[in-house]
Amino acid sequence: MRATFDAPTDPNAYRFCHQVRVRFAETDAMGVVHHAAYLPYLESARVEYLRSVGHPYVELRRSGIELPVVEVVTRYLQPLVFDDLVDVHVVVAGVRAATVELGYCLAVDGAPKATAVTVHAVVTGGSGRPVRSPRWLHELATGS
Amino acid sequence: MRATFDAPTDPNAYRFCHQVRVRFAETDAMGVVHHAAYLPYLESARVEYLRSVGHPYVELRRSGIELPVVEVVTRYLQPLVFDDLVDVHVVVAGVRAATVELGYCLAVDGAPKATAVTVHAVVTGGSGRPVRSPRWLHELATGS
Amino acid sequence: MRATFDAPTDPNAYRFCHQVRVRFAETDAMGVVHHAAYLPYLESARVEYLRSVGHPYVELRRSGIELPVVEVVTRYLQPLVFDDLVDVHVVVAGVRAATVELGYCLAVDGAPKATAVTVHAVVTGGSGRPVRSPRWLHELATGS
Amino acid sequence: MRATFDAPTDPNAYRFCHQVRVRFAETDAMGVVHHAAYLPYLESARVEYLRSVGHPYVELRRSGIELPVVEVVTRYLQPLVFDDLVDVHVVVAGVRAATVELGYCLAVDGAPKATAVTVHAVVTGGSGRPVRSPRWLHELATGS
Repeated sequence: MRATFDAPTDPNAYRFCHQVRVRFAETDAMGVVHHAAYLPYLESARVEYLRSVGHPYVELRRSGIELPVVEVVTRYLQPLVFDDLVDVHVVVAGVRAATVELGYCLAVDGAPKATAVTVHAVVTGGSGRPVRSPRWLHELATGS
Repeated sequence: MRATFDAPTDPNAYRFCHQVRVRFAETDAMGVVHHAAYLPYLESARVEYLRSVGHPYVELRRSGIELPVVEVVTRYLQPLVFDDLVDVHVVVAGVRAATVELGYCLAVDGAPKATAVTVHAVVTGGSGRPVRSPRWLHELATGS
Repeated sequence: MRATFDAPTDPNAYRFCHQVRVRFAETDAMGVVHHAAYLPYLESARVEYLRSVGHPYVELRRSGIELPVVEVVTRYLQPLVFDDLVDVHVVVAGVRAATVELGYCLAVDGAPKATAVTVHAVVTGGSGRPVRSPRWLHELATGS
Repeated sequence: MRATFDAPTDPNAYRFCHQVRVRFAETDAMGVVHHAAYLPYLESARVEYLRSVGHPYVELRRSGIELPVVEVVTRYLQPLVFDDLVDVHVVVAGVRAATVELGYCLAVDGAPKATAVTVHAVVTGGSGRPVRSPRWLHELATGS
C-alpha cells in the first residue's frame, strides 16, 4: 500500500483542525522544531478528529481494532519554532478494504508550514490480522 | 522537491550500515517501536555515514552548511520491538543543484523491517539560503 | 544547588494549572506513559505559567535570559495512560540569587499521579553567565 | 520510597559503563541536549548493565518481572552537545525488599556532565504487584 494522496497546502481543503503548541523539548540545535516531532502532531490531530466524530481511539482499541501506521510522507515547507500555535488540519483522504489514508496540513496563522500523508492498516489488536475498514470510516471519506 | 527514489528492501543495495539498539523509551503501548522513533534512527545512520566518508556533520555545520530535512517518506513493513539490534542501511540516492536524497533500509537479522527516503536542502547555516551541493556529495552519489 | 522543596500531592497547594492530553507517542511497551515523557509536561506547564503572569518564555529569551534546568526530581505515584487529561499544577517554590525552584503535581480527575521539582539557573542566553533573578520571579515566590 | 544515594561525580566509583552518541534529535534550541533526553541514556545504560551481568531486561520481562521507575533525580552539571560520546557509568546503589536504587554519572572524555539516581519498584508484569527483589540483584549491590 502506497500513499496516493497529494495533501493540499490550502487549510480550507480539510475537514477538521486540532491546535498544538510547540514545546521547547521539540526544538533542536538549528533553533527550529525537529522533523521527527511533527509525527506526534499528526497523531494528536488524528486522535482528536476520531474523538470529534464519536469514535475515540481508546474505544477503537477496546473494540479490538488498531490503526498502525504503515506509511508516512511529510513535506517540510517552512520551519516551526518554539511556542508556535500550530493548526493541524486533517482529512480522511481515502478508505480501502483494509487501509485508510489521511492527509494533513500544518499551518501557523494561516501560513502552511508542512503537509503530510499517513497510511494506516486496519487490524485486530491482538493478532494484528487485517480486518475490513468499519463503515463509519468510509463515511468520513465520502463526506456523507 | 519531491522524493523520487524507491528505497529497495535488499540490504545489499546500500553502501553503508549503522547499527542501533532499540530503546525501551522508543516503544509504545502497542508493544512495538513508535513510528516517529524511526526518524532519529535514519538521522543517526546519516550522521555516521558522513563521518565514515570524512565529513562529520559537526564539521559541515562549522563550515556553514546545514542539511535540513525537507521531505521524509517512511514505509513500515514489520514492527521493531524493544532491544532489537537494527541495521540501518544507507545510500546517497541522488544529488541535485541544492538538494540531496538518501535512501534507507532498516533490517533485523537480515529481514527488512522498514524503508525510507529523506530529501535534504543544502543551505547556509545562518541565513538558510540554498547553496550548491559540495562536490564530495556528488561523488558519494555516483560512487566514483 | 539542590532541590529543597517537597512537592505536595494536594493540587490545592499550587498556584497555576495547565492541562495536557497524553499522546500515544508518549506511551511505552508497559502500556503506560514512559517516565521521560513527564519532563516535557513539566516544561509546558512552566511555559504556560510564565505566560499567564505576563512573562512569556520567548520574551525572556529575547531579553537575554535563559532558565536552564540544573536539577529534576520526579516521583511517579500512579501510571498515566494514553488519552489521560493531565492537570499539571505548578508553584514557584523558591527564588535565590541566581536560581529558581518550581514544584509540580500531576493529577487526573483530582487523583495525584506524580510530583516533581525542577531547579533552574538564571543565566544570560549568550555566555550562560549567572545573572540575578528578576524581581517579578521573587514576587511569584512570595505570592505578593 | 525516596532516593537516598548521592551519586558521585567520579567515574571510578561505578561498576559499569555504556557509551551513547548524542543524536541531533536530542538537542534543543539552546544548542545543547534537552534535559529530558538524559533519561533514555540512563535507561540504555541500565539495560546494557543488566545484559552484561547475564540478566537481559527482555528475559526479566518474560519471567514476569518489571522494574518501573518510581523516582528519578538528575543533576545537570555541564551541557552535553550534539555528537558527544557520553560514558554513562552505572552502579547498583542499594536493594531493598521490593525496590532497587541505581546511581549514574555521565561523562565526556572523563569530565562529569551529569549525575542521576533512579529508584525502581520490583513488580510482577501483569498485575504490577510488588515482589521480592531477586537474589542476583542483591549480589550486584553488595558486590559479592
